[in-house]
Amino acid sequence: MSTPPTAANAPTPRAARTAPGLDLERAALARRYHAVRARSLALVAPLSPEDCQAQSMPDASPAKWHLAHVTWFFETFVLERFEPGFQPFHPAFRALFNSYYNGVGEPFSRPQRGLLTRPDLAEVLRWRAEVDQRVARLLRHTTRPEALALIELGVQHEQQHQELLLTDIKHLLSINPLHPVYQSAWPLTSVANVPAQWVERPGGLVEIGHAGAGFAFDNESPRHPQWLQPHALMNRPVTHGEWLAFVQDGGYTDPQWWLAAGWDWLRAEGLGAPLYWTLPADGAALPTVFTLHGDMPLDPHTPVTHISYYEADAFARWASASRAEWAGARLPSEAEWEASAAALPVQGNCQDSGALHPMPARAPAAPGALLQMFGDVWEWTTSSYSAYPGYQPAEGAVGEYNGKFMVNQLVLRGGSCATPASHLRASYRNFFPASARWQFSGLRLARSL
Amino acid sequence: MSTPPTAANAPTPRAARTAPGLDLERAALARRYHAVRARSLALVAPLSPEDCQAQSMPDASPAKWHLAHVTWFFETFVLERFEPGFQPFHPAFRALFNSYYNGVGEPFSRPQRGLLTRPDLAEVLRWRAEVDQRVARLLRHTTRPEALALIELGVQHEQQHQELLLTDIKHLLSINPLHPVYQSAWPLTSVANVPAQWVERPGGLVEIGHAGAGFAFDNESPRHPQWLQPHALMNRPVTHGEWLAFVQDGGYTDPQWWLAAGWDWLRAEGLGAPLYWTLPADGAALPTVFTLHGDMPLDPHTPVTHISYYEADAFARWASASRAEWAGARLPSEAEWEASAAALPVQGNCQDSGALHPMPARAPAAPGALLQMFGDVWEWTTSSYSAYPGYQPAEGAVGEYNGKFMVNQLVLRGGSCATPASHLRASYRNFFPASARWQFSGLRLARSL
Amino acid sequence: MSTPPTAANAPTPRAARTAPGLDLERAALARRYHAVRARSLALVAPLSPEDCQAQSMPDASPAKWHLAHVTWFFETFVLERFEPGFQPFHPAFRALFNSYYNGVGEPFSRPQRGLLTRPDLAEVLRWRAEVDQRVARLLRHTTRPEALALIELGVQHEQQHQELLLTDIKHLLSINPLHPVYQSAWPLTSVANVPAQWVERPGGLVEIGHAGAGFAFDNESPRHPQWLQPHALMNRPVTHGEWLAFVQDGGYTDPQWWLAAGWDWLRAEGLGAPLYWTLPADGAALPTVFTLHGDMPLDPHTPVTHISYYEADAFARWASASRAEWAGARLPSEAEWEASAAALPVQGNCQDSGALHPMPARAPAAPGALLQMFGDVWEWTTSSYSAYPGYQPAEGAVGEYNGKFMVNQLVLRGGSCATPASHLRASYRNFFPASARWQFSGLRLARSL
Amino acid sequence: MSTPPTAANAPTPRAARTAPGLDLERAALARRYHAVRARSLALVAPLSPEDCQAQSMPDASPAKWHLAHVTWFFETFVLERFEPGFQPFHPAFRALFNSYYNGVGEPFSRPQRGLLTRPDLAEVLRWRAEVDQRVARLLRHTTRPEALALIELGVQHEQQHQELLLTDIKHLLSINPLHPVYQSAWPLTSVANVPAQWVERPGGLVEIGHAGAGFAFDNESPRHPQWLQPHALMNRPVTHGEWLAFVQDGGYTDPQWWLAAGWDWLRAEGLGAPLYWTLPADGAALPTVFTLHGDMPLDPHTPVTHISYYEADAFARWASASRAEWAGARLPSEAEWEASAAALPVQGNCQDSGALHPMPARAPAAPGALLQMFGDVWEWTTSSYSAYPGYQPAEGAVGEYNGKFMVNQLVLRGGSCATPASHLRASYRNFFPASARWQFSGLRLARSL
Repeated sequence: MSTPPTAANAPTPRAARTAPGLDLERAALARRYHAVRARSLALVAPLSPEDCQAQSMPDASPAKWHLAHVTWFFETFVLERFEPGFQPFHPAFRALFNSYYNGVGEPFSRPQRGLLTRPDLAEVLRWRAEVDQRVARLLRHTTRPEALALIELGVQHEQQHQELLLTDIKHLLSINPLHPVYQSAWPLTSVANVPAQWVERPGGLVEIGHAGAGFAFDNESPRHPQWLQPHALMNRPVTHGEWLAFVQDGGYTDPQWWLAAGWDWLRAEGLGAPLYWTLPADGAALPTVFTLHGDMPLDPHTPVTHISYYEADAFARWASASRAEWAGARLPSEAEWEASAAALPVQGNCQDSGALHPMPARAPAAPGALLQMFGDVWEWTTSSYSAYPGYQPAEGAVGEYNGKFMVNQLVLRGGSCATPASHLRASYRNFFPASARWQFSGLRLARSL
Repeated sequence: MSTPPTAANAPTPRAARTAPGLDLERAALARRYHAVRARSLALVAPLSPEDCQAQSMPDASPAKWHLAHVTWFFETFVLERFEPGFQPFHPAFRALFNSYYNGVGEPFSRPQRGLLTRPDLAEVLRWRAEVDQRVARLLRHTTRPEALALIELGVQHEQQHQELLLTDIKHLLSINPLHPVYQSAWPLTSVANVPAQWVERPGGLVEIGHAGAGFAFDNESPRHPQWLQPHALMNRPVTHGEWLAFVQDGGYTDPQWWLAAGWDWLRAEGLGAPLYWTLPADGAALPTVFTLHGDMPLDPHTPVTHISYYEADAFARWASASRAEWAGARLPSEAEWEASAAALPVQGNCQDSGALHPMPARAPAAPGALLQMFGDVWEWTTSSYSAYPGYQPAEGAVGEYNGKFMVNQLVLRGGSCATPASHLRASYRNFFPASARWQFSGLRLARSL
Repeated sequence: MSTPPTAANAPTPRAARTAPGLDLERAALARRYHAVRARSLALVAPLSPEDCQAQSMPDASPAKWHLAHVTWFFETFVLERFEPGFQPFHPAFRALFNSYYNGVGEPFSRPQRGLLTRPDLAEVLRWRAEVDQRVARLLRHTTRPEALALIELGVQHEQQHQELLLTDIKHLLSINPLHPVYQSAWPLTSVANVPAQWVERPGGLVEIGHAGAGFAFDNESPRHPQWLQPHALMNRPVTHGEWLAFVQDGGYTDPQWWLAAGWDWLRAEGLGAPLYWTLPADGAALPTVFTLHGDMPLDPHTPVTHISYYEADAFARWASASRAEWAGARLPSEAEWEASAAALPVQGNCQDSGALHPMPARAPAAPGALLQMFGDVWEWTTSSYSAYPGYQPAEGAVGEYNGKFMVNQLVLRGGSCATPASHLRASYRNFFPASARWQFSGLRLARSL
Repeated sequence: MSTPPTAANAPTPRAARTAPGLDLERAALARRYHAVRARSLALVAPLSPEDCQAQSMPDASPAKWHLAHVTWFFETFVLERFEPGFQPFHPAFRALFNSYYNGVGEPFSRPQRGLLTRPDLAEVLRWRAEVDQRVARLLRHTTRPEALALIELGVQHEQQHQELLLTDIKHLLSINPLHPVYQSAWPLTSVANVPAQWVERPGGLVEIGHAGAGFAFDNESPRHPQWLQPHALMNRPVTHGEWLAFVQDGGYTDPQWWLAAGWDWLRAEGLGAPLYWTLPADGAALPTVFTLHGDMPLDPHTPVTHISYYEADAFARWASASRAEWAGARLPSEAEWEASAAALPVQGNCQDSGALHPMPARAPAAPGALLQMFGDVWEWTTSSYSAYPGYQPAEGAVGEYNGKFMVNQLVLRGGSCATPASHLRASYRNFFPASARWQFSGLRLARSL
């Protein structure tokens, strides 16, 4: 099942002479590699083998599977191709932990990942350790830029799965009537609300997408011009308090706010609030919200999260019709979002803060600032996830990474409280189906001028 | 259930003085109204009451329902509001033949439309005749521009349902092992193939969308600028012969050509060819294709049709990788399509030709011409169906016409052999989910330069 | 597709000498044949072609399909085998109107019967007329007992479909919000209630099943001994009024009365009353019941009907626990039912009465009489439908008639207001799945002594 | 959530004077209790926490859940009612590990049992240990016969779950492409085949069901007469080799052998062999069979197992038609089975043998002996699972144990290689739906004489 040794992955002489720039790049990559790999282990530290085994729905994966799959990525796409004398840790793992790369063979059935009790967690951790040693060795010796590029891709890939690991564990724990706590510290102190305020932007031709140095996924390229109409963005995401007003105003029972597909979805699922809310029997009390810290009373000043695109879109229509100061409210396009975000520093409440929950906006130093563009919650846009003009996927099985999902998904921007900070940039495109709610998804309003 | 008489729909004095321009407009609208209403009756002339009763799938509707629903539109949105002393033909029909306008009340369950055996066809035809008389009377007297605008919308709406009536009947008849014939004349004579040829287009800022006089749906507005990269369009749609090469090259069994969602769909449905093809047991023979004229051998020179977006997209990837002259092939965006179509006359093989099947391209007078942009087959684009910047739906229940479907659908352009010619224009946006195949949908290749 | 002529179906000399007994038998059969065939036409007389086309659920069939299928039975099992020089009316009908006889070939998909708009009703009626002529000719000439036996089977088969035609049409009309009326006359006048009373039966060895002359289905044989414990049957079926008490006592919301599978079914379907009941918003009023005569107020003295086995079983448990005089109530076994019914005349409110709805019990001439054992409502028994000891299905495709349904069905006894009276006998076994409700099914209580 | 102390569970004086017989009974029960509880722990010894967590289908349960649920039974039905000053180990476990007793409250969703990662296995084991101590204490002091009866019921209940634990783990492991081994020793040595031979039985009145001393479930009572026709049973179950002949003769592709519901099931599931078989690509080789000892070549002399009722029934029809010596073959009724089994010693290849797989029949000492009536494989009967005449379920929530499953299930008799030997008796009734295959189910042929 493994690739036979060819010229491409023939032994590299031990003391390969490499350019000093390459040495620095390899060293930096090695540091990043080990930091990210260690972070994955830290994320599962609060979990039992049982917690790491279960899969709560087809869209989610077991934590153990995440740990194994990101390791599979390095073994299959890096070691198998570039390691001299490659032998797999276990020959069956190549098919077992393939997610969706048809180029690598038929993957194991996705909804049954939770049934793979073997290998157990301990064996997956041994696999991780061995692959770490072998990648480290490769990083010391290889001079092949493709190898470095694929290791970088693997690191980024593992960061994506770190966020999924957190959202999947949250979903799993939420189903348990014991409502278990992933992490007991609760870092939030509610603060005064930052009032919603429109920030205006002129129209004209802008460029969006990635260009230049630094890692980016293929779907962020090529950078290209796009014409924008004059518009405004809200200074901060919609809050839990604002969403509560929507719920209390009958937002989930009035079809006029909803896309047809959203209304059908809502009724089929019997929904009346964001995921993880428990509405009080007594309408007067605040809802309870399940978090990675257990059940908490809803904090009205934090950004609302765990909403679908359907809900975000319905909220915007309701807001536009219900409040004079929000007339014309809609979701932004991804180009509108990126044009504004490109000028801002990439910082915010990300996974690194340890909050693992959106935090209230803090009053800005200057008026007219856009707050919380990065971190806290992914912001739904009206943009369907599709190829930028001139888009080319990578060669080989890795080319299946992004392009084959370009239908029936909406773009989200800006990262969340579960995204590693070093993983984000203004051109980053996340994407999910319109009904997905288990990510830390939220919204920021926009309007045309 | 009907609207009480108010100032808005109080009796109009018989000899209302109207401006001469309005008289002309009313007269023209009356002619169009009656021509379109008569056309609907002509379309069901070959059908029995039984044919008009059945519903072959939830996406389709019975012919009788189409005849009733378009009448409901005039009764509910025009007569109920503008006719003095309005009384409904039957009070229950208001809910029974509502398609999806929540503003009018809870519609009858869509998948069960085929179970409404009462009213029977004869009663629906009586309803049509009465509504025709009453609309005619209103058209002679009203001076209210909203009434005229809603009658115009109703006429356009009925034209849309004429196309659906044909595609729904085709689907119904195809399920019957007797493979009944809707219309026995077969007007097609195969002609020499027109070779595929790229037609290049420069990039830059273009304007798309509707503006100015003439009817257009709300989703075609506002007209707005869009930046295009240099690109080329194929001179004609992909033909049945070209598609056959894709089938014979294993196109339906190789995941590398397919979007992930398309591959899952393909396998769940067990598909290996476009809808209505019967592949010969002997691979050497040509497939048989079910048409409104019965089963016919595949004509390689006619545009391929009854394909989903998934199939169109997969074909383009295969074409790009398989033929040097098609390298870079993809589907066009709707802006690319419209920018080229805007300069062309709106003519082609539409419903009016009576062919009711795509016809072969005819050799152009001049090289570099784009052929068959209008009529024959709807052309899938890569563009998700969404709101143009600044889009505003109409007020009231009619505002549910278009906007609430703006998710999980792809735009198709250009009309088909089942579309009334007078219903088309360059800015016209049709839309269907990626898996829809029962429309006369096809594709035209594009590529970036 | 038709059977080639063989010795078995070679021409019979015109003036075949037959025994006088056979002549009488043939003449009687011919009379019965024509009476039953005419009755089928009478049943569809109130229906339009549209009514005859639609299929309201997979378990039901269109009226047109019933008319065609019973004709198919005579053509396929009688004419094809016994008619000299047999030619089918239409060669495709053999597969099209096969219900489930795999021995005849792959049947057309059952849930899609409503999509067969061709042949239309008129053509099906022509087919019926032609087959009637040909069967009449065969009946004048044949001397083969198998032919007579199969014609007799076909007549009985058509009577079964007459009942299904009525129950299927009732289900179809009930879905239409117009609640159309099948037959406008309403023959019922409520009468004084006949009080419920236990009728005791000794235990011991009894014989059940069919033996001797007269038609019976294979599943009623062989007659065999069965040991019964002493028990009692209720003198009449449970009434609508008694059932209303069960509803009002929360019977549909308390799991203690329900089989586990019944409780799951109830909750999945969201049920709170028998099929065709509309519970009043105001709990004080009587429910409305949809009948073949339109919507009617519930008559408390008529036998309850359109209940599933799950509901019948739950009612019995509730009755046993709720009323001292009903302690120990359960459903009877089919042997208990038949042992009591065998002594009674086969008469009651059957299809022939024209009521097409259960009628109230009439006070008996003598105390201790079992009332309404035949007609009114089929009575659910606790007996699973299975083979009697020594059961042998018929040879050939006709052998698929009964035996292959002997799993996951419960036996019902006694016939209903939709069963032709001449079709019934004490040994008759009807059978349906535990969740079926669209038949005229009811219950009679029993208890062990 | 726990029951408040009442007179019924008030403290028992420490040195309660009890009759000597009761002392002996309590001591024997205590020994049995501890042996059975220890056996459960032994069964999970080869499993990791991950193995114990996963649930491979809604019908199966995680091993951890089995361990917890049987403990819940003792806590809820015994300690809560009889222990002075009862406090639950964890108040939430009462709802969490309730299987289906609506009398105890709303159970946790069955298909989601695999998502209960908390409590973890270690905590469940602590719970077991605590409950064991408390039950032991109760057993030393209680004088209440109901308490002893419920402890006995709990012991029997745990034995049932031991078998399920094994079949559920087998199903889980089979899904893993690594095909993990539960227990590596393979105790089987194939021996010479014991030829199939009919053993004849006279008809007449027999008594079946439980009576007298010794534990039995409520569904085995009351003992009652039943009339049998003369019949024969096969001397041993059908073997893997005989089943292979059925497969190779096209048994799974010919509808004539199958019940209608079975044929639909077969085609919907796409089945062609018993569960756990892998048919060789090369028809000549023997199939491979997944066992608790890993993948093994099919042994033709062992009883076939993991077949549904549909398959057992189809095999009997095929056997009857295909082999002269098997003419008339069918499945036995449960009364036929029990009448023969009642005279035999309850011994065979049960869980205690450690084989955990059916073993070949051994040649009998005397001709005409019925072999393998107990152990090896559960034998499907034609009898639907229903109440014996006069059946009364137990009072209270425990009354939900058996009675509420009496629909749409077939009775199996005799126990299997996974059943504890001390759990079996001739009157024991197991039951599963007709499509169930993951139990060690097989068949023995019968025929009427």
